[in-house]
Amino acid sequence: MNNSLPIGIFDSGLGGLTVLKELQHLLPNESFIYVGDTAHVPYGNKSKDAVIRYSNKITSFLASHNVKLIVIACNTASSVAKNQLQEKFKFPIIDVITPLYDHLCRYEKNTINKVGIIGTYNTINSQSYNKIIYKYDKNLKIISKACPLFVPIIEEGFHNHNIARSVCQEYLSDFNSEKVDLLVLGCTHYPIMTDTIKQVLINNISIVDSALTTAEYVKKFIIKNQLDNQTTTHNSTQILVTDKAPQFKEFAQKILLSNQLNIKAINL
Amino acid sequence: MNNSLPIGIFDSGLGGLTVLKELQHLLPNESFIYVGDTAHVPYGNKSKDAVIRYSNKITSFLASHNVKLIVIACNTASSVAKNQLQEKFKFPIIDVITPLYDHLCRYEKNTINKVGIIGTYNTINSQSYNKIIYKYDKNLKIISKACPLFVPIIEEGFHNHNIARSVCQEYLSDFNSEKVDLLVLGCTHYPIMTDTIKQVLINNISIVDSALTTAEYVKKFIIKNQLDNQTTTHNSTQILVTDKAPQFKEFAQKILLSNQLNIKAINL
Repeated sequence: MNNSLPIGIFDSGLGGLTVLKELQHLLPNESFIYVGDTAHVPYGNKSKDAVIRYSNKITSFLASHNVKLIVIACNTASSVAKNQLQEKFKFPIIDVITPLYDHLCRYEKNTINKVGIIGTYNTINSQSYNKIIYKYDKNLKIISKACPLFVPIIEEGFHNHNIARSVCQEYLSDFNSEKVDLLVLGCTHYPIMTDTIKQVLINNISIVDSALTTAEYVKKFIIKNQLDNQTTTHNSTQILVTDKAPQFKEFAQKILLSNQLNIKAINL
Repeated sequence: MNNSLPIGIFDSGLGGLTVLKELQHLLPNESFIYVGDTAHVPYGNKSKDAVIRYSNKITSFLASHNVKLIVIACNTASSVAKNQLQEKFKFPIIDVITPLYDHLCRYEKNTINKVGIIGTYNTINSQSYNKIIYKYDKNLKIISKACPLFVPIIEEGFHNHNIARSVCQEYLSDFNSEKVDLLVLGCTHYPIMTDTIKQVLINNISIVDSALTTAEYVKKFIIKNQLDNQTTTHNSTQILVTDKAPQFKEFAQKILLSNQLNIKAINL
């Protein structure tokens, strides 16, 4: 394995850029190829078959670009497509759900009683997070809620708008009344709306950002498996989209805090 | 021309079903083939090129099913793809924007001063409605507003929910303060949310439903051009989708008030 090969990342649209940002921060020597499937965003309201088909196409594309591993930076695709992708492709495939286990292990036993999860319908219905949480502690109480409007709100750039606050109040009130200890942001778009989510939640609910937990997991994984790039000669980031949607560039620049992004459209 | 041939209709998703419903009501002798491009919904945040490419594929598909005319039951596709489709295909293609002219002609001159328009970004930015309104009266004042969250709210079935009311208050307040005479629902999804929109608007604003104006226009057009089906022997409705999205059937049944829908997935 050539350790200077890039890490492939994909998402339905913009959300996965939160994972890319954390990865760039934690792994400054690595190169990245990011694919945003803007032609099919959002995945949350598509059929499982469609999400599996799109994920397969993107993974094949990234495989043809010699990536050393792939991060599925989309919770919907992680929930429904991860296993099939790992069976088909030889390089490691890391999803955004499994890393929650390592994150939970940081807490002392019995300090957490109730965990909240928010995500798309597909993610919530798949119960993928529940399996990870019960593996950590089968006595935890889990309260989950699909928040299907968060992705469109964020994709429209309204995450700090009054509309976002109204929608958060509507979706998140149960987590306050149930007094959950943690709220897992089970969609890589959601960290973009963290400030608004925090304004609505009562103070003592900790937010678990799956973009950050995933980046930490990837770092540990590539070091453990000796896949990390030791040189900084060729590190770079390519951003590719399946439809050059008008708002994408501006928004990507805001998330990645860079005006130097080179975004190219690809046909898949 | 065989007048018993079906009328083709397409939209990005569910919204065009409001046009289908009005067409079924006004033209009970006609057969219909509806295509909902659920693999790419919503069109409002896609690039113009992508919307033109999707519209072309669907129109070619409908052409291969021998439709006698096509209704583009999507304002975004009407705004950006109509002219190119009409150049390429021989049968008549009717969009959902042009019919507004006939509708405006019903009002006595000088009874309307200000017209409001709501739609997706693509529709509003295309200024397609402005051209039609200025053709009717170039002195009218036009106030337009993109309401990008209405489609996701409706596709999620939240159109009578508190969230919809909050979002309506946010988007529509200018139409109240400006006291527009008419508000054009410039997206075929929006009639589904008419009740909530009415709750937020002041009383004397009339709502123009583009699904209804389009169906009235189509009726007039096929009678004038002697394309109307005189027999009722074979009338039927086929509904086809490019992705069998989980919520589509239930929602289509609610819009069309029928439990007997036969919805098939097609690959385009």
